[in-house]
Amino acid sequence: MIKATVYVTVKKGVLDPQGVAVQGALHSIGFQEVESLRIGKYMELTLDTNDRAEAEERLKAMCEKLLANTVVEDYRYELEG
Amino acid sequence: MIKATVYVTVKKGVLDPQGVAVQGALHSIGFQEVESLRIGKYMELTLDTNDRAEAEERLKAMCEKLLANTVVEDYRYELEG
Repeated sequence: MIKATVYVTVKKGVLDPQGVAVQGALHSIGFQEVESLRIGKYMELTLDTNDRAEAEERLKAMCEKLLANTVVEDYRYELEG
Repeated sequence: MIKATVYVTVKKGVLDPQGVAVQGALHSIGFQEVESLRIGKYMELTLDTNDRAEAEERLKAMCEKLLANTVVEDYRYELEG
């Protein structure tokens, strides 16, 4: 069993409307020091395998096929343990 | 200027419907090895301050007030540099 973490973020230069909205909300409740805010996704997976090389390859395929929209998003992943 | 990262995750024991849906989608396209998947939010912030202690305190307040719903979500944050 391998635990993995996947981070999916909006690419630089691509507008992040969710981030803009949250930043505006923070400003409006007094957190004026927030200069920028970008929101991404964070996924914790458990994989039923003990082969780290295979897990890494499969994770990459999952990101490319489903977890990230590679046109506007970047991804990175980490294996635990 | 301080860069910070905030992670907001669904608490253990709380149903994560988005994670369940994505796990089902991964299974249906051949990634049967995914045993569990939980989705959270990942935020990159830039704060206009150089006082790390103050930044930490303000970040905590932001999480408590707006970024996380502490009834069903956990949060943690990291300061860079």
